[in-house]
Order: sequence, then C-alpha cells, then structure tokens
Amino acid sequence: MGRNVAQKLIGDHLVSGEMTRGREIALSIDQTLTQDATGTMVMLELEAMGLDRVRTETSVQYVDHNLLQTDEKNAEDHAFLQSAAQRYGIWFSRAGNGVSHPVHQGHFGRPGLTMVGADSHTCAAGALGMLAVGVGGLEVAMAMAGEPLYISMPEIWGVELTGELPPWVSAKDVILELLRRHGVSGGSGRIIEYYGDGLVGLTAMDRHVIANMGAELGATTSVFPADDAVRTYLAERDRAEDFTELLADEDAAYDVHEHIELSQLEPLIAAPSSPGNVRPVREAAGEEVFQVVVGSSANPGLRDFAVVAEAVAGRRVHERVSLDVNPTSREMYADLAREGWLFDMIAAGARVHQSGCLGCIGMGQAPAVGRNSLRTMPRNFPGRSGTDEDAVWLCSPETAAAAALTGEITDPRDLEMAHPEVQMPGTFTISPDLLTPPLPAEEARRVELVKGSNIRSLPTFDPIPDEMDLPILLKVGDDVSTDEIMPAGSRVLPYRSNIPAISEFVFVQVDDTYSSRAVETDGGHAVVGGTNYGQGSSREHAVVAPRYLGLRVVVAKSIARIHWQNLANFGVLALEFDDEADYDALTQDDVLSLRGLHESLRASDEVSAQIGDREVQLRHRLSERQVEMVLAGGRIAQYAQSTAAAG
Amino acid sequence: MGRNVAQKLIGDHLVSGEMTRGREIALSIDQTLTQDATGTMVMLELEAMGLDRVRTETSVQYVDHNLLQTDEKNAEDHAFLQSAAQRYGIWFSRAGNGVSHPVHQGHFGRPGLTMVGADSHTCAAGALGMLAVGVGGLEVAMAMAGEPLYISMPEIWGVELTGELPPWVSAKDVILELLRRHGVSGGSGRIIEYYGDGLVGLTAMDRHVIANMGAELGATTSVFPADDAVRTYLAERDRAEDFTELLADEDAAYDVHEHIELSQLEPLIAAPSSPGNVRPVREAAGEEVFQVVVGSSANPGLRDFAVVAEAVAGRRVHERVSLDVNPTSREMYADLAREGWLFDMIAAGARVHQSGCLGCIGMGQAPAVGRNSLRTMPRNFPGRSGTDEDAVWLCSPETAAAAALTGEITDPRDLEMAHPEVQMPGTFTISPDLLTPPLPAEEARRVELVKGSNIRSLPTFDPIPDEMDLPILLKVGDDVSTDEIMPAGSRVLPYRSNIPAISEFVFVQVDDTYSSRAVETDGGHAVVGGTNYGQGSSREHAVVAPRYLGLRVVVAKSIARIHWQNLANFGVLALEFDDEADYDALTQDDVLSLRGLHESLRASDEVSAQIGDREVQLRHRLSERQVEMVLAGGRIAQYAQSTAAAG
Repeated sequence: MGRNVAQKLIGDHLVSGEMTRGREIALSIDQTLTQDATGTMVMLELEAMGLDRVRTETSVQYVDHNLLQTDEKNAEDHAFLQSAAQRYGIWFSRAGNGVSHPVHQGHFGRPGLTMVGADSHTCAAGALGMLAVGVGGLEVAMAMAGEPLYISMPEIWGVELTGELPPWVSAKDVILELLRRHGVSGGSGRIIEYYGDGLVGLTAMDRHVIANMGAELGATTSVFPADDAVRTYLAERDRAEDFTELLADEDAAYDVHEHIELSQLEPLIAAPSSPGNVRPVREAAGEEVFQVVVGSSANPGLRDFAVVAEAVAGRRVHERVSLDVNPTSREMYADLAREGWLFDMIAAGARVHQSGCLGCIGMGQAPAVGRNSLRTMPRNFPGRSGTDEDAVWLCSPETAAAAALTGEITDPRDLEMAHPEVQMPGTFTISPDLLTPPLPAEEARRVELVKGSNIRSLPTFDPIPDEMDLPILLKVGDDVSTDEIMPAGSRVLPYRSNIPAISEFVFVQVDDTYSSRAVETDGGHAVVGGTNYGQGSSREHAVVAPRYLGLRVVVAKSIARIHWQNLANFGVLALEFDDEADYDALTQDDVLSLRGLHESLRASDEVSAQIGDREVQLRHRLSERQVEMVLAGGRIAQYAQSTAAAG
Repeated sequence: MGRNVAQKLIGDHLVSGEMTRGREIALSIDQTLTQDATGTMVMLELEAMGLDRVRTETSVQYVDHNLLQTDEKNAEDHAFLQSAAQRYGIWFSRAGNGVSHPVHQGHFGRPGLTMVGADSHTCAAGALGMLAVGVGGLEVAMAMAGEPLYISMPEIWGVELTGELPPWVSAKDVILELLRRHGVSGGSGRIIEYYGDGLVGLTAMDRHVIANMGAELGATTSVFPADDAVRTYLAERDRAEDFTELLADEDAAYDVHEHIELSQLEPLIAAPSSPGNVRPVREAAGEEVFQVVVGSSANPGLRDFAVVAEAVAGRRVHERVSLDVNPTSREMYADLAREGWLFDMIAAGARVHQSGCLGCIGMGQAPAVGRNSLRTMPRNFPGRSGTDEDAVWLCSPETAAAAALTGEITDPRDLEMAHPEVQMPGTFTISPDLLTPPLPAEEARRVELVKGSNIRSLPTFDPIPDEMDLPILLKVGDDVSTDEIMPAGSRVLPYRSNIPAISEFVFVQVDDTYSSRAVETDGGHAVVGGTNYGQGSSREHAVVAPRYLGLRVVVAKSIARIHWQNLANFGVLALEFDDEADYDALTQDDVLSLRGLHESLRASDEVSAQIGDREVQLRHRLSERQVEMVLAGGRIAQYAQSTAAAG
C-alpha cells in the first residue's frame, strides 16, 4: 500500500520504533525554531548541557513575542538571545524582523524536513510539506543537541478539499470550518493531512493559514503535499533549488476521513472565547465592534493584508473602531509600503504597528471590557488579549475589513463593494542579511553570553544519592496544579530566566514558608501530593524551581502526565502510593528514608521507604532509559555526562 | 517704544493686571489641548464643574500617550475621552492620529492666539506665533470654562539667530546649543523669543523643534514671529486663510539678550541623564550604541524622518542597533509611505511603530541597563525610558542616523556620505476627517459619559464649616514630597481616574494606617507637616485623594508653592505656624479646634486654633479671591456654585 505525505515524512526520519498508532517512535530532527518567550530557557539549557554547537541542519532563534519593552528586561533578553545564537551556531532574527513561523517558512522552510519548535504554532511549516511539531523547551534543546524527538505515533487524518473558494471567503474560513465541525480537541493525537483537487486554488501562504490553526484542533501537526504551489512559493523567493516534490502515493490511505467542498463555504467567525465557537458571520451580524486587529501567524500573507487595504482604500475606518495592523515581517511591511497598500490603510485610519506577535499574545492592543474585538489571529481564549473579561472574535481578513468599515460584525458579501482582486507584486522584498547567520565554530567559541542582571545560568543538578533522609516539607491535597506550584502572572513571569529569583515564589499561594524552609533544609526534601498532582500548564519551572530549592522526591496518589515527564527530565523522583491509605498516615515534617535506591529503581517498579518505624510501599513508572536519566540528575545532567565521557 | 511678539500676544489677551515683570496677570485663552494621560482628570473636572460646553474657540482632546494597552484600562480611557469630547464640545483625535503638538499645529495652530495645554510641551505652538503654556489639569479645565489663566508676568528673553545652518546640523542643535549655554533652568520665569536674519532658513517645523524644547530650559514658553515661513506652512496645509502676520516692532526691545550664529554650530548631543548635559557629538564619538529612536514631539517634522530615511537607504542598520521609528502622525506616516521613505527605513532594518509618544514617555522601547540609546526626543531624565539605570542621549535626526549605521556615537559629518538633500513633496496628506469635530450643542447634551469600571466621577467637596474639631491623624517631618503623600508607579497610576481607589494609597509609605483611619474619622481631620511640605511633583492627586479621605486642614512650618496652590484649588486650608516651636508641641491624635473660621480668614492672615487647653497662632497666605475659593470648597465647587447662581 502506498504512503501518504505524513507517513513518508515520518518514515524518512524514523530512528527507532514502529509506525503503529499509539506506539512510541523516535524521529531525527532537521530544524529547530525558538522564539524569545521560550528561547531564553532553551539557551540556558544548552549552556547547562555544555553544548558546543547545535547539530541540527538549521536552528533559528526569533525575537517576536516580547517587543513592548516597558522596562529593561525585554531588551536584555534580546541581547542575551543574540549572544547565545552566536555562541551555539544558531541563526538570529532580530526584534522587528517579524513573526517566526512565516519568516521561517520564507527563508528556511523546505519540503521533506522535520522541525521542532518551542511554540505551539510551529505546525504551520506543514504548509511546505514539512513535519513540524510544537514541543517544550527542553525537547527543542535536545533536538539542537542532535537527540531525536520521542512521540506517540499519531493517527493520520485525511482531509480532502475539492472545488474553489467563492468571493469573500478565504483560507481562514477553511480551518474555521474544521473547527466548527470538530471543536478544539478534534485533532488530538492526529496529524491532519490535506489532499484533493481543491489544493490547486490554495497558495503556500493560504496553506500556512490552515496548517497554523491545526494547533487549535489540538493536532500533533498538519501537513500539505509539496506540489506546484510550493514550487512557485520557493521560486518567488529565489529558492527554487530548495524545492523537492513530496506527494502522497496514488494509493495512499488515511486512518480517518473528512471532506470539505470549498465552494460551499461561507464567511465564518469564532465567537468569544474559544476558537471552536464557530458560526456563520451572518448569525452574528450587527454586533457593535470597537477594535479590529489584522496580523499574527494565523493570517500572515501579503494577500491577507492587501485584501484589507483594498477594501478600506479611499474609505474611512468607522469612528468607533481602532483598526490595528501588525505587518507580519519586516520584508512584508516593506512590500506593503512599496505597493501602496500601507498608504491605503493608514490614510483610512489604521494604526500600523511594528512587525511581531503583539496583541495575539497579549502584548498590547488589549480591548476594553466586554467590547467586541475582531481579530485575524488564531486564539481567543478568555483573557489572552490582556483584558480579563474580553470579547474577542476570530475571523478572516475579509470579515475583519468589513467590520472596520461598518463598525459592526458584517458578512463581507453584504458590503456594497466588488470583491477586491488583489494582484500580487512580481517580486517580493527579500532581506536575508537582516537574519544573522551562525558564526564559524572557532569564532563562536569565543563568544561570551550577555546576561542582563535578570538572567542567570540554569543551576546544575547532581545525581540522586543511593541513601536519602528527606523531611516532608509540604503535604498538599488533590488536583494541585502547576499554577499553584509555580505561579505565573506579571509579578512572577519577569523572572522566567532567573531560577534563584523565581524559586522564591514556589508554592507561595499554598504555603508561603515553603521556599524559605526548603532553603534551610540541607540534604534535600520531599513533597507529598494527592491525586492528579501537577495538573494544568506544562511549565518546566514548576519542576526546575523546586528542584533548585532541594526537592528530590514527590510522592502522590497520582501525578499528571506532563508534570510527571518534567519531574523525570529534571531528576526529581516521582513516586506513587501502592496503597492510597498511606497518604493519610503521612504528615508534614515526617522524614522519608530511602536506602539502596539505585538498585531498587533498576530492579523493579517497587520502592520501599521507611517513615519513622513504618515501611511504606511506593511505585515508579520510569522506563529503563528514564531510570538512568533520573539517577544522573535529569536529562541535561545525563547529556552533559555522556558528552564528557565521550570527549 | 515698540513691542516684541510676546508683548503683543500678552497685550492682546490681557484681562487684568499690568505687564510688569513678576506681577500677576490674567490672560484670556483661545485654545486648549489635552492628551490622554492628563485628559481623563480634566474631563472629570469638567463633569464636577457641571460645565455644559467649552467656551474656548477650540479645544482638542488627543490620545497619544497610553497606546500600549496591556490591559483594558487604556482602551477604556480612550472610550471615556471620546464620550467626554462629544459631551463637552471638544474635538477628538483618536489613538494613532499622532502626537498632540504637531497634529495641533497642523490643524488648529494660528498666529496670534493663546493656548493652555495639560502637557509641558504645549509651548511648541510658539512656532506659529502663538502664546502657548503648559499648565496643570485644573487650569486647563478652567480655561475650557472660559476662565482666564493667571500667571506671573515673565521676562522676555530675546534670542537673535543669524547666519545659516551648515550641512548635517539642524534645528535640534540650535536648542541643544541654548541648553549647553544655560542648562535646564536657564529659561525659568522667561519667555524665549527668537528673532533675526537666521529665521529665514528655519521652516515652521524647524521652529517647532526649537520651541518644543524651550520646556527643557524651564521657560514659561517660546515664541517665534508669524512670518513668511508660517505663511508657507499654513498654505501647504490648505489653511492660507488662517495666516495673520505677527512680527516684533522694528524698535522692540527684550529684557535679556542672546545671540546664536547658526553657521558656527556643530552637531551636539545631551549625554545621560539630563537635557542640559550637552556636548559636541565628536567628544562622545566611539561610544557603542544599542538603540536609536527617531520620533516624538521634539523632532516631529517629515524632514526629520526623511533625512534618516535618505541616510540609511540602501544601507543596513548596524547589527547591534535597534532602530525604532515612531512616525509623528498618521498623516505623516502616510506621507512617509507614499514618498518611499518608509520603505527605505524598513528595508534597512528599522522597526516602525504606530504614531504616538511611545518611548518618549516610557511607553515601551525601554533599553537595556547601561546600554546607550540615542533618541531625537526632548528628555532623558533618569529612568524616564522605563529602565531605571538607563543611558539615554538626545540628538538630532542626523546624529541618530549616523549612530544607527555605525553602531557607535558618530558625528554625522564623519560619515562618508554627502548630506542628504531632502526634497519635500509638493503636497502633504491632510486627513481632517480623522479628527472628530465637536457635536452640535443639542446633540452633545444627550451624550452619556462612557466610564469603564476604573473611571469614577470626581468627588464633590463641600464648603469649609465655620467651626471644626479636627484630630491630627498624621504628623510628618521636613521635606515630605508629593511622592510620599500620593505615590506614583505602576501599582498606583492605573487608578489615576478613580479617586476612591487611589486614595487607599495616600501616605502608604509613611503610615499605611492613615487611609483607613481617615475613613473612620467623621467630620474631617488635619495633617501636620514640617518645612517644605508637599515639595516635588505638581500632581493634583496629592490633594484630591487626601481631601476625599476627609483632609480639611494642613498645618506646617512651610508649604511648597505648587502643593500650596493645589490645596487652595481643592478647598483644603493650608496654614503655617506663627512660631515653629508649636510644631514640636503637637502630637498625633491631638484635636485642632477652629471657631469663627470664616470671619477670621476674611479679616486677616491670622488664624487661632485651640489644641486642648493651648492656643496656637497660625497664618494663611490666601488672597481675598482665594479665601472665597477655599471657603466654597475649592475652585471647582466655587465655579459650580457661581454658574448655578447665574443660571
């Protein structure tokens, strides 16, 4: 049987495992992408690993998230990232160059490659026939070090597109239609693969729109074939030589099937406050609109801005509306200026901002409470805009332009206007010299990391001793989330690159003496939890910071999946009660004694602990590989040891 | 003897007083300008006054300061200001229209008029032959209500300009030269009037640069004659009919004299962290530069951006430098796009931001600690950029462009480049319909103020009773500043339009029980201070908030001038000890009893107070007019009473 595009990409990069749904596979990774919000931690991880130089074909560090710079921290993060990119052999994209995903596609995207990115919209690269997955920072750091990506083999969901989009309907409406049908978890555990005659009418940038918001369906990633549209895209960027055709075999099959007839689509909109809350624009028509924001990785193409410009040219933005325009990239901003579209938008009343993510990740552009804001962005989770009780809607550029002109939600087909026939320019501005290439290795080794006062090296963590006597510093109940372990918010987040500083906030909402008591306790400590310990956000800080304070062991009734993985990654032993009744018998300040730990972890999944004169039976769920990782002090420590041994 | 321009402007608007240096004069006011940071308070004052409609020829509310919108507060302030502008007959300039001063000059500036503005750079309007003074919010509200402006008659400082500026030297270097000679208080108590042959070579926008930064010399304002340069400026904006010639008489004299030969000037720069810290650029050459910011009210002209664009066109911004460009106004942004200059800057690597003040007032663009940032802005006070230990330099657009290219402070004459001969376009983009004109009175009366959850009406304050028994809730030492009375900062400032909320922070650094004790005390209270009570910032909140909490009387050894004025304006009785030794005898919780207060205030400057069984002699410094104002409960209460009586 023939293979589909996803299977070809996986098969060509399979390091270990079998391509059977649900089984763990390991994939070699060609490229990585990091942005500034996640990248500082990744660079600190590279430093802690003692990596000399990245081993990927291409790694790129972008600066697109924290562009507002209300104090020194963002500028200092940017300087740190620039120096780290120089040190480790990474491309660097400066503040203002634009949003990572479309810039990456334009300069580095290449059919047939794999990529991991510390950003959930990394999947957009599927538009060019890449297999690109958004993952946590440490996974990206490991990929940079040449380690494979471990994932569970996904289902392949074939979405057949037929027909042609009608006027005023565009790529955004295609992915909104999929969200309308299946909601925000419809893609979970799946790769979405698009095929069919309808692809002919979708440019590579249209496909970027669709692939980007696969993340909103919870999909592992999305893939498109590398066909003539991709060939054209690369040729227009003087990169014809980077094209390789990558098509599904004629007899390829899919695990799950879907069909969308493009000619049947109409303008759609996701109502507050979920990307899955989709309905026809006409059903919401007439609602007053106070803000319209055009931009972000979800509608990043020149066409997506040009269609807005042509719709508002010679007209006026409604008096009630702030029309905010965030040009995707510096190159595209230049093209908007050159082609006159920028003039059209400004003259009509638009506020045109620097290139970057901006309002899409709550960096400015926050709307008033309860006042409708229409955005061409990918997400409208409650409060993501920066306003707690916001009312954000997601739509196409066409629908956004209509609302900007009328001041209310309007189906663009109801404007008394011909659909703008946007003519793309013959050439695009291409400024590769604004992307700084990696330094030669010799020169790179001499680069010192530039650390502002708020950036500290990642602490190094030592191996787990064979014998430990650990006081239980904290006992908590069920469903304690990572938000309780390591709060976020504007008081804490600025310290994300400074583990000593951020560790003062660990468990602060639960017990504000924990951090100081932990510091005073020599030889480490333990924490006891109930069921579902560590649920919620995947943040690694919820492990790194308590580990920094001396946490060695977590014992709980059960531990949430991602937090459990993070504990293992950073060398904290996660144990679960054999008998949940033992939870009740433990009290804070009891001492948990472990003896012969190394052998018992290697020998079985059983661990005995002594508490006072009682013995308690515990279990671990670590694989052999993971046992060695935890014993070594975590994945970074293990990597550093193995390279030291090899060197 | 003939009159100079300043004397003509004052003479034509004199309502009362004599034009003798140092004597109080009252001037009728034609125009007002408010921006969003100060405007919300002004609008709340209009509401509290019960004003029906502004009585000025033209009042304009701009939105140019708080544009970042990191939560809902700024968007809600903008909506409030828009509704207040509609209600009171005020022009409204939306977010993104641009920086108030140059936009005002372009659309409303007219020779021979007076203006007050709640912004210290209001003085820039002197470029067109206006008398424009930056004042506190309540003064602006009073001017809107048709009340005159009371000031002390300033000295007139004649600055004669001769000759012509050499290549690479521009208007910014003229005002930096004046700052180099006289420092930041050299203009105190003075109006700076420019005259001489050298004016021929300075356009109205060049003069705007010079007049703007008169504020940095501490001058009351700056004035230029309305000559052919002004005629040309207005004609280019289709406003030829608004021109009136206004020249100094041939035999005009000045109180103080100065001469600047323009051909002798060289590129200058103000080093960190004072606009008065001026030196030749060559003396600082070679210092590494990490950021260059072009924009703000200090260099707002199209030429000021075009010269940067032409210098960087076809070149690359240095790898180390973030070149941030803040187009002054939407109209100018459109012109930069139309003329290709925007393309040149973006293609060279600039980050181009929305139109507004932005980094000039610390709204983003904060540099890294200690890393040099060169700006074409008017001020570099420590920390103003948003970074506590910043290193901000002030310079011309030419010097800024040179640093952007070389990555270090560079005299632009040392670039290997011909001085760009900027050709201004034949026409400018003029978009008056982006400025919303006042509603007709009938319609305006029906407008409801749109108050977000964080905006509260100004409390109304009742008249001072004839008898009071006031516990002394707080006794403080010498030199207590308004920062201690009413802190600013990011925790407190968001509540600037919400007196009940901000009042919880009064004296919080001195005694955090003050606010709650004040609320619990019926019938008002007193505060006792040492010498120089209320020094520092002029903020009105340092009076309004404690008055809201029940403050009726301040007794101190001495009270700082502006705070004393603010106390009177808001109906708090300011008294000073006859004998400073009485300060020592008073303790917190003593009760200050006043009897027959009305008569004693009207009869003399002596006030007797009973404290326990002791009598203490106190004095006030109120004029007859001010006594009535304080007795009425303050200037707003008095205004409201008088109009109610008249109506």
